[in-house]
Amino acid sequence: MNLDFFFYPSSVAVFGSFKKGAIAYEILRNIVEGGFEGKVIPVNPKGGTVEVGGKTFEIREKLDEQVDTAIIAVPAKIVPALIDEIGPLIRGAVVISAGFSEVGNEKLERELVEKALKHGVRVIGPNCAGIFGVHGKFFGSFEVRVKPGGLALISQSGAFGGAALAMGNDERIGFSAFVSYGNAADLNESDFLKYFADDENTKAIALYIEGVKDGRRFLKALRYASSKKPVIVLKAGKSASGAKAAASHTGSLAGSYEIYHAAFKQAGAIEVEEMEELFDAAKAFEMYQRAGKRVAVITNSGGPGVLATDKLERLGLEIAKLDEKTVEELRSFLPPQCSVKNPIDLIADADYERYRKTIEVVCRDENVDALLVICVPPIFILSEEIARAVIEAECGKPVIVNFMAGELIKDGVELLDEHGIKNFPTPERAARVLKWLSMR
Amino acid sequence: MNLDFFFYPSSVAVFGSFKKGAIAYEILRNIVEGGFEGKVIPVNPKGGTVEVGGKTFEIREKLDEQVDTAIIAVPAKIVPALIDEIGPLIRGAVVISAGFSEVGNEKLERELVEKALKHGVRVIGPNCAGIFGVHGKFFGSFEVRVKPGGLALISQSGAFGGAALAMGNDERIGFSAFVSYGNAADLNESDFLKYFADDENTKAIALYIEGVKDGRRFLKALRYASSKKPVIVLKAGKSASGAKAAASHTGSLAGSYEIYHAAFKQAGAIEVEEMEELFDAAKAFEMYQRAGKRVAVITNSGGPGVLATDKLERLGLEIAKLDEKTVEELRSFLPPQCSVKNPIDLIADADYERYRKTIEVVCRDENVDALLVICVPPIFILSEEIARAVIEAECGKPVIVNFMAGELIKDGVELLDEHGIKNFPTPERAARVLKWLSMR
Repeated sequence: MNLDFFFYPSSVAVFGSFKKGAIAYEILRNIVEGGFEGKVIPVNPKGGTVEVGGKTFEIREKLDEQVDTAIIAVPAKIVPALIDEIGPLIRGAVVISAGFSEVGNEKLERELVEKALKHGVRVIGPNCAGIFGVHGKFFGSFEVRVKPGGLALISQSGAFGGAALAMGNDERIGFSAFVSYGNAADLNESDFLKYFADDENTKAIALYIEGVKDGRRFLKALRYASSKKPVIVLKAGKSASGAKAAASHTGSLAGSYEIYHAAFKQAGAIEVEEMEELFDAAKAFEMYQRAGKRVAVITNSGGPGVLATDKLERLGLEIAKLDEKTVEELRSFLPPQCSVKNPIDLIADADYERYRKTIEVVCRDENVDALLVICVPPIFILSEEIARAVIEAECGKPVIVNFMAGELIKDGVELLDEHGIKNFPTPERAARVLKWLSMR
Repeated sequence: MNLDFFFYPSSVAVFGSFKKGAIAYEILRNIVEGGFEGKVIPVNPKGGTVEVGGKTFEIREKLDEQVDTAIIAVPAKIVPALIDEIGPLIRGAVVISAGFSEVGNEKLERELVEKALKHGVRVIGPNCAGIFGVHGKFFGSFEVRVKPGGLALISQSGAFGGAALAMGNDERIGFSAFVSYGNAADLNESDFLKYFADDENTKAIALYIEGVKDGRRFLKALRYASSKKPVIVLKAGKSASGAKAAASHTGSLAGSYEIYHAAFKQAGAIEVEEMEELFDAAKAFEMYQRAGKRVAVITNSGGPGVLATDKLERLGLEIAKLDEKTVEELRSFLPPQCSVKNPIDLIADADYERYRKTIEVVCRDENVDALLVICVPPIFILSEEIARAVIEAECGKPVIVNFMAGELIKDGVELLDEHGIKNFPTPERAARVLKWLSMR
């Protein structure tokens, strides 16, 4: 199903109150300040004007022209009638309003969907936080705006989605789209999985779910999406108490977690365990499609190298056995105190040359699938110097980077980021990323 | 053993080169800029002067007066003779210089120790990154300075220690002391554990080890320290490859990890699995000594509440069953859409009053040992408002806080921090912290 009218609309109408701080006002502000280039129409029966982003908009008393998408933040009880009224003029409705099945008003929700389907209108929500189509500069939600990139985030929980977007900004993740689908009265996770699988701006999909209603359809959609691009899944409601909490939150019958776990595996999805891991995985898949299991660790400090090695092995990856030729070549230019076994310890005073050459030599080794490069810059070496070595080293294999030491590495990490290389803040998180890359 | 002359010295001498960028210069700079109030004497046979921190120091050609501690960064081969020479004038020596047993020079290292012991001088190192005594404003290392607080960090790896200090700054952790003990030719982890166990400025101890030489002594010291205060241990070299890497790094025979694991447990230490967890645990123990297992989760957003619940249960904690009186009391003032089961969902528009009152009511419940308070601030509520509710709520039980959403919560997190309340950035990390607190 083509959902471009939601994520790349050319015109939208926003329904609700346009007082400062009101949901509809905040969404309108986000759309305008986000640089949306299509037509934006605020609608409220009281009319008037609203100033936002330096522009003044006339508030229409009713919608009187065709738009792609309507964003609706009016009281729940009048939503069905509104949809019936504007049905002939819209293709999709994003219903932000709460007060439907999540508080027991199943009947009102059914009515909403019936009216929509009667007009061939597709619905996202109700009880949701809205949507983003980042490459179309369309921020149809009150959540924090994000920079364009390859990650589509599908979230059953609005608050989780909002927090994830904000944390994604902190982690310098670029997004293609965001959808909070709330009660999923019409469109649900399966529809979005299929749509983003075919969306050319989306390089990876992240999915937060508590439960799904139609397991068979979900599995099929997940398998399809995973065949096209990495799908990272965070399942909440795994434990008995968590499942009960999920039931009272989104009304999801979470079902046995074991079934979900097996389904994710079978479909080829990347399941993560924690919120933080969702971002780490997203960062990794923004850079690489996959990586083999045989890892070489290159470090300038022993301890972190040992921690990475421990974690890699614990996660079932292999510490690559370097070819004798590689060992010899490394020996030829590395100082004698350096360890040329894997992990390769370049010791504290490792500079640009030592890092770059080592990365290149190790990268050529046929026993190595991926590299994990660690740097704890000592006072006498700038982190940018090592960052440049990583950036400039000729290597066609995945290189996962762990620079660490707070303030000391800020400039190096920024430089890496400018070249599309994400930093992972601890050896263990870097190692875990290689695990996910090896699952594709 | 009283090691105050290392961590609270009244006078120190620094040996080495005082050219800018040289190790001895950087250590001198750290001592001076760190505000050390005792006497500082740079020593180098060439004499001259060195300017640092706006002061000019005369470089003495040799040490000619009594000092507590000597910090030595001269070539390895002349260290034993230097120690023999200054032995009568010093109580402790911190040997930064590398080139001893870690590169096969066992003989030189033995000689160093023999000379020191002959004069009754105790040695830290060689091949180490130095020490901090933060409350004595003594920064005898080239690592980044930290703010005063309760954590003593003992690290077998210098680079790990340096990275940990810098990351600790990012995590707003306060330190009492830092010691990188390198090859541990004389003093080792057991000595420092015992010393910090009795140091009144130290509230918790964090220990990074790859391996220990005298297991029986270590176990005894660990048990002693754990009986006095929380000891957080991160063991590296757990896996087969990791142990091999550790052997080439610090020469540690890491031994079977299962033995270490059992020893940590038996001694009552808090073992963490990853570097990041070391900080989370340190933050928790800076606030609380311990917590019971029955946790109440208070949140304004369902999804994160479910994630926290999942993690708590997975870690063997209990989702507290609230007393009927508590449920009734919550019902009396919370809006009907709120869930008063545990997790308690205050829903998105929860304000100061709703949070504060809920925390106080739940805190009085005898079935509750600890509280996990989650907040994802919606656009119309400032994170400071919820932070104030947490700060001002009257509650004598441990409260662990998870505010999240990047930029949106910056001010709230800062306000919490000013009141000694640390924030944990994800529901899962907050949950894990309660696990560690329950282990004491």
